[in-house]
Amino acid sequence: MKIENFQKLFYPKSVAVIGATKNPKKMGFHALNSLVKTFKGKIYAVNPNYDEILGVKAYRSVKDLPETPDLAILAVPRDAIYNSVRELLEKGCRAFVIISAGFREAEIADGEELHKKLKELVDSYNAVVIGPNTFGMVNLKADLNASFTPALSLLKKGDIALISQSGGVCHLIAPYSMREGIGFSKIVGLGNRLNVDFHDMLEYLKDDKETKSIALYIEGIDEPKKLCEKIREVSRVKPVVAMKAGRFEKADKASKSHTGSMAGNYKLYVSALKQHGAVIAEDLIELVSFAKALAMQKPMKGDRVAVISLVAGLGMVASDYCELKGLKLAKFTEETQKQIYEILPPYTIRDNPIDLGFVANDTKTCGEVIELAVGDENVDGAVINYIFSWSEEFLEVPTKAIIKASKEKPLTMCLNYPPGFWDDVKEELESNGIPVFSTPEIAAKSLWALREYDKRVRE
Amino acid sequence: MKIENFQKLFYPKSVAVIGATKNPKKMGFHALNSLVKTFKGKIYAVNPNYDEILGVKAYRSVKDLPETPDLAILAVPRDAIYNSVRELLEKGCRAFVIISAGFREAEIADGEELHKKLKELVDSYNAVVIGPNTFGMVNLKADLNASFTPALSLLKKGDIALISQSGGVCHLIAPYSMREGIGFSKIVGLGNRLNVDFHDMLEYLKDDKETKSIALYIEGIDEPKKLCEKIREVSRVKPVVAMKAGRFEKADKASKSHTGSMAGNYKLYVSALKQHGAVIAEDLIELVSFAKALAMQKPMKGDRVAVISLVAGLGMVASDYCELKGLKLAKFTEETQKQIYEILPPYTIRDNPIDLGFVANDTKTCGEVIELAVGDENVDGAVINYIFSWSEEFLEVPTKAIIKASKEKPLTMCLNYPPGFWDDVKEELESNGIPVFSTPEIAAKSLWALREYDKRVRE
Repeated sequence: MKIENFQKLFYPKSVAVIGATKNPKKMGFHALNSLVKTFKGKIYAVNPNYDEILGVKAYRSVKDLPETPDLAILAVPRDAIYNSVRELLEKGCRAFVIISAGFREAEIADGEELHKKLKELVDSYNAVVIGPNTFGMVNLKADLNASFTPALSLLKKGDIALISQSGGVCHLIAPYSMREGIGFSKIVGLGNRLNVDFHDMLEYLKDDKETKSIALYIEGIDEPKKLCEKIREVSRVKPVVAMKAGRFEKADKASKSHTGSMAGNYKLYVSALKQHGAVIAEDLIELVSFAKALAMQKPMKGDRVAVISLVAGLGMVASDYCELKGLKLAKFTEETQKQIYEILPPYTIRDNPIDLGFVANDTKTCGEVIELAVGDENVDGAVINYIFSWSEEFLEVPTKAIIKASKEKPLTMCLNYPPGFWDDVKEELESNGIPVFSTPEIAAKSLWALREYDKRVRE
Repeated sequence: MKIENFQKLFYPKSVAVIGATKNPKKMGFHALNSLVKTFKGKIYAVNPNYDEILGVKAYRSVKDLPETPDLAILAVPRDAIYNSVRELLEKGCRAFVIISAGFREAEIADGEELHKKLKELVDSYNAVVIGPNTFGMVNLKADLNASFTPALSLLKKGDIALISQSGGVCHLIAPYSMREGIGFSKIVGLGNRLNVDFHDMLEYLKDDKETKSIALYIEGIDEPKKLCEKIREVSRVKPVVAMKAGRFEKADKASKSHTGSMAGNYKLYVSALKQHGAVIAEDLIELVSFAKALAMQKPMKGDRVAVISLVAGLGMVASDYCELKGLKLAKFTEETQKQIYEILPPYTIRDNPIDLGFVANDTKTCGEVIELAVGDENVDGAVINYIFSWSEEFLEVPTKAIIKASKEKPLTMCLNYPPGFWDDVKEELESNGIPVFSTPEIAAKSLWALREYDKRVRE
């Protein structure tokens, strides 16, 4: 029943913004603005002081709305939240985003009390609430921006669901992902997790056809057992990547004040998350990069890596990072090694890690070597490093061969180029399922994530 | 005397490309193309088969050149290198970039021999040679692109000199830096280091007024003692950041084939570089980020950090990374703490790490808190985290206060925003000496680099 209400939350036909306003200094303005810019369903504004806001008809109160909205976004003062939610529930609304703050995260006497009271109310209706104390959420594939930041609609549509306890972290990952071209299905800021916590989101996303991998940014955990059990269940269906903040005491303390729960013992939690099937990310770039690789590629079945690079330096860096994460540089079979020695001239490096530098503009040969190396029976996966040099006419990426090789084994790529130069190459590779990153380190670590996922779900 | 020739290398009035050609499948085409596009001095092409290439008059041989070029760029076949260089030396040329490969890095019988013979020749003239086996170098402030990649001229002019044993690494850092707006004075691919090695470059850059910090990407080290001594000397004058590849055996082995020297024991070398004054970077993003922070900010005199964030999540991540690197979250004095409690409402986090979330659009208050926290006598440096949310009208970065605070103590910033939204804000901050990064992790680690530099040069 709660799951049905998740459908209303993420795929509403109508949305009401309670506390919408013309004052651009208030959240209610931005929340309505986000909707107006992208949402194709019905939009209602509620505010007794206006007839119209941003071209949307405004109603005096929830009771005056001509229909029950599927989703209500609340940006009213904290003390008005309870009554607004009650009115909406009575009208039949079952999905809420509560942006307003001042609940159990705050140093206010009745914050905890108000949280409990509100939770009892919404639970009694089986309603779902994102927040309070959240920027909101976006469902990019439904053109739904239920947040106070219109610019989040600029994100690319994709297959990653990002579930975060911090809105700030979402606002950091979003522009990074815009620049890197990483796409999302849904981004949700859980805030104080009144009655939608990580485990609820995991349960919903398990069967969400628009999500291929799930990234979790976790500060505090209220119900570790439920979370771990759900990770075990969901990670068998699709990859779950988790980053846990609060490694040290100070950050840990900040978590309590932030969204109302202690971050707890870092090592203990991370080890539990891992044991239950999550791939652990150490930083925010890893979080989104691992989720990207896992959404695009199959798990890697062994530890043996081939590293093939246009230039030796990148190959060295990638090799170092593969080994740092516990992967092994593959020893090619004699047959493969012989063939590579026949194809490549002596200027190049013909052992693993392979350097194609001096045949760089011989696209056919580069492609052949890539296919040979990746296809070798001693190789379980590969990192391929290409960077732009010379000019587009001189240097061509052997995309066809890379795409063919990727059907054989999991692979990740580093492809970096001056703005505008190889966007089409990246597009071709990614539309064929090859995750492209900007540095050899993150390409290598993302290949490790493919291996780690395989290990986690088989333990 | 060698130093004088470095001036000709980096600030030539005339440049000749030996082996220039109209064939875009050859390096000689791209080397000339790079020059033609940006260089304002005299350009000569040498190739017996053409009268003109890319609008530049071509001469049949070096002997036919109407004047002695200050700098010669060689892209002739490997077997023609020795004679070309000899002719140029006899004509009076003393600075060379040798792009051609096939010397001691290659599995060719006489590679090592040719290397030695060429070295004896150029050394006898006190000439300087970048390469062989290099993409070349750029001196952005002289509009000199002496490389085979015209797009390197798109880099921003700045204060970092990047000296790399790998051209690939330069071609990776370049586009990253274009996107991040990181500027360089000079980028040099040392290649096989015929007679210009890291220690020679350090000696030259020590007095280079256009360089404020030096980034080294090192694979193998031929003369560790000379390098360490030069790092000790130069790091007392300006910061030196070093990244060492070849952490593991495989990468190490690749180094030999790459630019002709074994990478050697990673831990031993890194520890020696560090002891002599280098700040060690673990990856390529750290390398360029640390160099950026150190080019812009003063060293940090103690370990105590204030973390001030627009949103708590980023503050937690930054705090974790500060502590991971060994910095301590500062405990504010009672007076400062009291004042911050008076200024900030209870919804915010008023202890270190400070969260400004709920007063985000009160720019004046945010600025006051930043100045108070950074100015506190228990604070040695600060990380400030801002991300774009709501809209530009709603959220303003307190740039004036941040700039004022940065006069007191070293600080780094994380500022992230959708493409195009806050470019002017970043520009204002950076033109006032505040290094701005895209994630809280790298902002925190770069603050650590400011602390580490202080420690390294005082040990």
